[in-house]
Amino acid sequence: MKKVVTLGEIMLRLSPPGYQRFVQAESFDVVYGGGEANVAVSLANYGYDAYFVSKLPKHEIGQAAVNHLRRFGVHTDYVARGGDRVGIYYLESGASMRPSKVVYDRAGSSIAEATAHDFDFDAIFSDASWFHFSGITPALGEKAAALTEAALKAAKKHDVTVSVDLNYRKNLWTPEEAKTVMSNLMQYVDVCIGNEEDAEKVLGFKPGKTDVTSGDLELAGYQDIFKQMKEQFGFKYVISSLRKSYSASDNGWSACAYDGNEFYHSREYDVRIVDRVGGGDSFAGGIIYGLLEGKNFKDALEFGVAASALKHTIFGDFNMVTVPEVENLLKGDASGRVQR
Amino acid sequence: MKKVVTLGEIMLRLSPPGYQRFVQAESFDVVYGGGEANVAVSLANYGYDAYFVSKLPKHEIGQAAVNHLRRFGVHTDYVARGGDRVGIYYLESGASMRPSKVVYDRAGSSIAEATAHDFDFDAIFSDASWFHFSGITPALGEKAAALTEAALKAAKKHDVTVSVDLNYRKNLWTPEEAKTVMSNLMQYVDVCIGNEEDAEKVLGFKPGKTDVTSGDLELAGYQDIFKQMKEQFGFKYVISSLRKSYSASDNGWSACAYDGNEFYHSREYDVRIVDRVGGGDSFAGGIIYGLLEGKNFKDALEFGVAASALKHTIFGDFNMVTVPEVENLLKGDASGRVQR
Amino acid sequence: MKKVVTLGEIMLRLSPPGYQRFVQAESFDVVYGGGEANVAVSLANYGYDAYFVSKLPKHEIGQAAVNHLRRFGVHTDYVARGGDRVGIYYLESGASMRPSKVVYDRAGSSIAEATAHDFDFDAIFSDASWFHFSGITPALGEKAAALTEAALKAAKKHDVTVSVDLNYRKNLWTPEEAKTVMSNLMQYVDVCIGNEEDAEKVLGFKPGKTDVTSGDLELAGYQDIFKQMKEQFGFKYVISSLRKSYSASDNGWSACAYDGNEFYHSREYDVRIVDRVGGGDSFAGGIIYGLLEGKNFKDALEFGVAASALKHTIFGDFNMVTVPEVENLLKGDASGRVQR
Amino acid sequence: MKKVVTLGEIMLRLSPPGYQRFVQAESFDVVYGGGEANVAVSLANYGYDAYFVSKLPKHEIGQAAVNHLRRFGVHTDYVARGGDRVGIYYLESGASMRPSKVVYDRAGSSIAEATAHDFDFDAIFSDASWFHFSGITPALGEKAAALTEAALKAAKKHDVTVSVDLNYRKNLWTPEEAKTVMSNLMQYVDVCIGNEEDAEKVLGFKPGKTDVTSGDLELAGYQDIFKQMKEQFGFKYVISSLRKSYSASDNGWSACAYDGNEFYHSREYDVRIVDRVGGGDSFAGGIIYGLLEGKNFKDALEFGVAASALKHTIFGDFNMVTVPEVENLLKGDASGRVQR
Amino acid sequence: MKKVVTLGEIMLRLSPPGYQRFVQAESFDVVYGGGEANVAVSLANYGYDAYFVSKLPKHEIGQAAVNHLRRFGVHTDYVARGGDRVGIYYLESGASMRPSKVVYDRAGSSIAEATAHDFDFDAIFSDASWFHFSGITPALGEKAAALTEAALKAAKKHDVTVSVDLNYRKNLWTPEEAKTVMSNLMQYVDVCIGNEEDAEKVLGFKPGKTDVTSGDLELAGYQDIFKQMKEQFGFKYVISSLRKSYSASDNGWSACAYDGNEFYHSREYDVRIVDRVGGGDSFAGGIIYGLLEGKNFKDALEFGVAASALKHTIFGDFNMVTVPEVENLLKGDASGRVQR
Amino acid sequence: MKKVVTLGEIMLRLSPPGYQRFVQAESFDVVYGGGEANVAVSLANYGYDAYFVSKLPKHEIGQAAVNHLRRFGVHTDYVARGGDRVGIYYLESGASMRPSKVVYDRAGSSIAEATAHDFDFDAIFSDASWFHFSGITPALGEKAAALTEAALKAAKKHDVTVSVDLNYRKNLWTPEEAKTVMSNLMQYVDVCIGNEEDAEKVLGFKPGKTDVTSGDLELAGYQDIFKQMKEQFGFKYVISSLRKSYSASDNGWSACAYDGNEFYHSREYDVRIVDRVGGGDSFAGGIIYGLLEGKNFKDALEFGVAASALKHTIFGDFNMVTVPEVENLLKGDASGRVQR
Repeated sequence: MKKVVTLGEIMLRLSPPGYQRFVQAESFDVVYGGGEANVAVSLANYGYDAYFVSKLPKHEIGQAAVNHLRRFGVHTDYVARGGDRVGIYYLESGASMRPSKVVYDRAGSSIAEATAHDFDFDAIFSDASWFHFSGITPALGEKAAALTEAALKAAKKHDVTVSVDLNYRKNLWTPEEAKTVMSNLMQYVDVCIGNEEDAEKVLGFKPGKTDVTSGDLELAGYQDIFKQMKEQFGFKYVISSLRKSYSASDNGWSACAYDGNEFYHSREYDVRIVDRVGGGDSFAGGIIYGLLEGKNFKDALEFGVAASALKHTIFGDFNMVTVPEVENLLKGDASGRVQR
Repeated sequence: MKKVVTLGEIMLRLSPPGYQRFVQAESFDVVYGGGEANVAVSLANYGYDAYFVSKLPKHEIGQAAVNHLRRFGVHTDYVARGGDRVGIYYLESGASMRPSKVVYDRAGSSIAEATAHDFDFDAIFSDASWFHFSGITPALGEKAAALTEAALKAAKKHDVTVSVDLNYRKNLWTPEEAKTVMSNLMQYVDVCIGNEEDAEKVLGFKPGKTDVTSGDLELAGYQDIFKQMKEQFGFKYVISSLRKSYSASDNGWSACAYDGNEFYHSREYDVRIVDRVGGGDSFAGGIIYGLLEGKNFKDALEFGVAASALKHTIFGDFNMVTVPEVENLLKGDASGRVQR
Repeated sequence: MKKVVTLGEIMLRLSPPGYQRFVQAESFDVVYGGGEANVAVSLANYGYDAYFVSKLPKHEIGQAAVNHLRRFGVHTDYVARGGDRVGIYYLESGASMRPSKVVYDRAGSSIAEATAHDFDFDAIFSDASWFHFSGITPALGEKAAALTEAALKAAKKHDVTVSVDLNYRKNLWTPEEAKTVMSNLMQYVDVCIGNEEDAEKVLGFKPGKTDVTSGDLELAGYQDIFKQMKEQFGFKYVISSLRKSYSASDNGWSACAYDGNEFYHSREYDVRIVDRVGGGDSFAGGIIYGLLEGKNFKDALEFGVAASALKHTIFGDFNMVTVPEVENLLKGDASGRVQR
Repeated sequence: MKKVVTLGEIMLRLSPPGYQRFVQAESFDVVYGGGEANVAVSLANYGYDAYFVSKLPKHEIGQAAVNHLRRFGVHTDYVARGGDRVGIYYLESGASMRPSKVVYDRAGSSIAEATAHDFDFDAIFSDASWFHFSGITPALGEKAAALTEAALKAAKKHDVTVSVDLNYRKNLWTPEEAKTVMSNLMQYVDVCIGNEEDAEKVLGFKPGKTDVTSGDLELAGYQDIFKQMKEQFGFKYVISSLRKSYSASDNGWSACAYDGNEFYHSREYDVRIVDRVGGGDSFAGGIIYGLLEGKNFKDALEFGVAASALKHTIFGDFNMVTVPEVENLLKGDASGRVQR
Repeated sequence: MKKVVTLGEIMLRLSPPGYQRFVQAESFDVVYGGGEANVAVSLANYGYDAYFVSKLPKHEIGQAAVNHLRRFGVHTDYVARGGDRVGIYYLESGASMRPSKVVYDRAGSSIAEATAHDFDFDAIFSDASWFHFSGITPALGEKAAALTEAALKAAKKHDVTVSVDLNYRKNLWTPEEAKTVMSNLMQYVDVCIGNEEDAEKVLGFKPGKTDVTSGDLELAGYQDIFKQMKEQFGFKYVISSLRKSYSASDNGWSACAYDGNEFYHSREYDVRIVDRVGGGDSFAGGIIYGLLEGKNFKDALEFGVAASALKHTIFGDFNMVTVPEVENLLKGDASGRVQR
Repeated sequence: MKKVVTLGEIMLRLSPPGYQRFVQAESFDVVYGGGEANVAVSLANYGYDAYFVSKLPKHEIGQAAVNHLRRFGVHTDYVARGGDRVGIYYLESGASMRPSKVVYDRAGSSIAEATAHDFDFDAIFSDASWFHFSGITPALGEKAAALTEAALKAAKKHDVTVSVDLNYRKNLWTPEEAKTVMSNLMQYVDVCIGNEEDAEKVLGFKPGKTDVTSGDLELAGYQDIFKQMKEQFGFKYVISSLRKSYSASDNGWSACAYDGNEFYHSREYDVRIVDRVGGGDSFAGGIIYGLLEGKNFKDALEFGVAASALKHTIFGDFNMVTVPEVENLLKGDASGRVQR
């Protein structure tokens, strides 16, 4: 089995049951999740040896996060233990025109205070095939940014392919801070995932004047940005998911991508949403699977989109789908008929 | 903060979890609600000092109703304690073409047996800005009808603006009984809220021959009725919500209104329903907020519609939304995108 | 009250709450159900003396299945007690493009091992008006097939009308096995219910060359097959429900039927699904009610379709609707307005 | 199977989950129960054809009560349908020194308004072996008292053995009212169950001067009262359960009885309480079983005590134990070892 | 109604349901609590106008804490809104010999960062009868210690009686830090509550050589310490609860106290524990009630002990008991008999 | 970390919530467990690399069992996938004098049908320190007995210490069958755990005439049996837990053991039971830990008893305690005081 590695924060997610508002809640449903952990779970579900690199407190809540990862097949050998707290995010599920709400309480978490001394990156990246990170981790603070770069250097030293999900988080840093840190990290990246907002806020790209005689302005804007991004940072692939938010209950979901030659727009799925958190992460997970399996780029893209469309029907941050389930959808069966 | 007052019954609502039918239920979800209490909660959420006037038994179930009101910010200083029972309504949530069902068990409740001696209306309406009641309270019986009129007289004595939601309840009285009692009470009312059925059953209005060459017959009917109602009772505003019941799961939701000059039809929302009980009450609450804040009438109407559209996505009778949340929707963001 | 009889297996159904996947479940919701038991519950709800004939272990899990039937009005006097186990099926509810999944664990159940000695068929069919069975029971094994034929012979001896739901189950037998067993049993059947797949897999019918100049190819295929089926086996009525699986969340639902003279296509309902298991069984239940009440065939068909459309909004295998509820929908009220 | 009949009210019981107080409850656990219904369930569990005679509204909450009885094996053929409401009692479970609390809301229930015209007592008591009622039913009001006497006369006409549980309820009537009504009804009674308080409040008996040189004063008091009761009313047996309330969590449980010759005191059980409601009813059920089976009186008494000791470990009003389970405890195995 | 004030932190409490361990939890039960908030709830339940002074974030989790207080009758007019987070504590309920566990995550909470500028202490203490604080608040940091002293000075300026619960928390500070800060604050205190460990860790007192010829060494130690404390700080009353931890399920509970003349030991209760968190706070609440009502000191002490014994039977931090419930226990009825 | 191996069946455990009886259950709590899996979890919690060897179906229920093991730290590399079903046991929790009940439905499970070809025992036992099995696995059938012996031979070939828990299961085989199979397997065993009943039913030992002048007859019987067992089979240690079943709620718990020189009786714990299933397995796990850590035998025994006493307070089959938690209890702290 191929070894794949992701680095980041796993948080305790606290969400009122069903569609309850925060002020109604007498209990919180508990899962653990975070961008890079979510990618690791996807990759474990696809059959890889997925390792999540992070730091968690020694106490029982830290242990519960470790157990949650283990349960869904992620290796936790490289989860350092120490520090003060597990980051938290509160999630209220929206419905119809009422949006979902996230309240973050993540400052001071163990991974935000971790340093390269907490990890043996040579061991971590030895024999690894892929390393994925996101723009969230360096946004946690200077220590975390330094940690991310140390990991990236080690990954490159071991010839590991690197993907990033730009994932701009306005609560964590300003666009200026993001640009300074992230522009530097892009030198290590092979596959860049991020939408229009990310491209602008994190890397400073905006669509230029494009010659659009007909067709979709938004897609044309993406094509333009993707070309600029590839040019400046030498990415092999630039990719973005595309979400049409009809409401908190129904979305359109597709993706576009550029491989230096062609610009692709995938099939679009109409999704009735059970839980949209982790949708983007499951998309990244699907893309990585497609590329690691040697699929052609268009097929890898479609795999990522189908996998992440399914994620929207699954409670929690993690995308608990298998390769055959994704392939069943790819083959065109979105009928939802009972499988006996 | 402005002081606003509502008078009525708060009932124990017992509903099977999720979409269970009554005969399947092994537990009931518990909330407390009722038309006028629901309006009070809306007004408390918008930042007013909202007082609910009612009577509840001294025992623990009565106390639980008080606590439920307090939790969501309503002042319960004017809730008299005594009498025999908390009225009950059983609610089964429908889905798709299966309608929701309500079974009432409210006879003999404390408020139905209360009299003006239970309340100090001079204190209650002192410095108050608004008084809201509905056609349900006088329908509870002769005592309650007398109590309502006593409250209305006191409100007028203190120059408090008065709104009514006509709310015809066929289980409580006949159209004839309703007309006798309600026609008399209309003399105290400034703002009248009620749909076509209410207008006919409670006040005896029917759309006349209207000269409609094109357009929406239903709206034309409303316009005609509203003019008649304004003429006869001198209401300042006549208002109705408009529900398109596509199914128990999906509704269209808008409103129309008349201010003596113009007839308005608001924006219409497509709502995926979480809980539609209290939709009309949240509409009244939104209207009252808009008028109390001195918005122009059209804007107050739109606020009421947006607020009550959101109510349909919230479990329970109460509309737990804030002014910024309603305004966000009014600005056009019905996308339901996650707010981080 | 008319006495109606069904014979088959009732299984323990274990389903993760809400939309949880199997691997997330920390609890299973428990109901008991199975094709013929589900039909019996429908008939009990419509006011008949419905008897379910089966065998269940003596232990408490067997007793719980008995109690579940009794709760919903089915007579269990003819449920033999003994044998080793209650058959199980695990059900994961799908959403949007993610299909529902069923994992069967039913081998070795008490009814699969039962014989005619366990039952007094003369008593069972004495004064009975109707007997319903399905293709599932004979598929449980040779003993169960023999038991089914014994029941059918006894039913015919007592002049009881017989209906079958062909219900092909690929986990239980091959088309060849099905054909051998089922073709023989068809001699006892008056009313045959089954879709295109059932007709082919269970009885070997395929649509022939039909002269279709316009219109719906699928319906034309059904018409052709129904004629063949009626010709070969002398059924009085041949009937099929028609499901359009837009997704696991939304289906179109109608039916077609042939009475030897006319071919009917019913009204079609768009259903937002709460639980689609038992949809076909509730259709059969509705048809039987319509025919037992002496409705004309088209009306019986529409009753069946409306009843089973409602089933899709009800949790569990059983269709907990009453005749007035079905009739309300038949009259055209699919608005889902709250019934107070 | 022997036919046994009980007459009374079945109420909706609403209880906060676990040890929650009323003011904390966001949901209520739902069961249905009442003294005479509870006795009927016990008798059904022991293998008799147990019929519960009562009246319930036609609506779904009434149906749910019917279904609850059917589920646990009670025949509901003689439950009349009509009237306004299902009586309710709210139950808060105590713990340690905090007592359980009951809030009644039962006025105006269907059975309280029922008359003899609602029932065909000749059919009901035809072939019946036993009739059980309690002091609660005549306490519901004049109509219910008349109904009870009509039932008793019919029972006697059919030579049915009659038992009563005196069950004084201070919320329903005064001792004076109780005495007037109940003294008259005692002429129909063969077996009288009731504790010291019942004997005084319902029938006016107090322990006289007894010659007690040593030993248990309370038991001596019982013996004296029992003799008086037997003398005055000609009961065949006079019986009382004896509860030692150490706390809401732990009780001692035994019984004493008099058969005209001997005064018995049963074995005493220490019970850790799961749910003590229905304890007395399960005692009555056990006694009736013992006497119907022809056990000697002492054995019947011990069966009743063991059965009702087990009731204290079972959630809800109903005693869901079988004869073998009671006998296992009677044989002395109170060890609670896992039965595999 | 008398106005009483408490100052401190209210935290979000997250506890696995029932006896689940942290690593098993898929949901957390949610309540909000904290030493001084708990005291405020007790005082509200006893009929006072109880005001809780604190600071909470503006976001919805902060609002939920406000609502929780309001629900149980505490006035939240003096809860400042702002800052970053709601402090959290995770609670795992122990059983038998397995202890309950608390994991704190409270650093950086809004109240820990608040200053006197956030509050109008003159308004707060105007007309107030009592002020209660605990050793936890000053332990939150220098800002919180300064805030506490500012509150105490204002209280004294308004002649408000002051009580303290010493409540040593080893996770928050060292004994040396505690002594420095708390010794200074004792000048404002009239009533001091704290056990042997608190006395030593917070104030540096140890039992001296006491002349104990017989009897209870522990009580003698308390008497000695109490005398020293009263002497040094001039407390009017020195009080401690006494817990005998037989196991996590069963405790003995009493208290001792000194009023300068006599040393009292209260009645001792054996408690079967539902939730022991907040036991000490409910004791303080009971004492304050007793003293405010002008009971003699011994009676106030007994009220506090009985009230807090009952707390152990109630889920959550808050003691939801009324004066009549405590008095019922004081009168000697610990039998737990059902109250109908 | 030391590698430890256990072999056996892991079943799906279905239990009604709380103290519900089977016939009341509307849901089942889901855990997975089985004697040898439970031991593996204990050993993983103590820090070893614990491998569970078994076979589970490829479907999602099989996967859920794998995930459950992974969550709690057990390595599942050697769990073969295939076969038909996951064995099931239904568990009803008793209370007070009502015993817990287990209904097995385990026939035909994947592990019962597995053979040595499913496993690479050389890899499994390479570098392993300990192998534990129980009398349940060979009782599953001839295949499973052969598989067990194959495992034992391989273990011995790799010089792995072997322990057995005799664990007689009367539903699986007769004493005669047990003796034939198990007597043969004892040649591979170093450490034998089993109580008096096991010793007799599985190996045929009964206490002989012992010279007991005073003291505990039961312990004397054990001593005699242990000597015989050691003599015949050459065990290094013979050990039994000792349960005093006061009731389903309260047990006494200790152990006795013989090392060839001395006979030990451990400290006895009074346990208030949360869940007693897996108590014996956690005892075995504790013993193995003690011996692997090189503790003296008496200390290993005490560790096992303390660990398994704690198990009784934990829901599910698995003993989720850490070494420090057991040591805390061993040091004498059974007070259950809150650990902050």
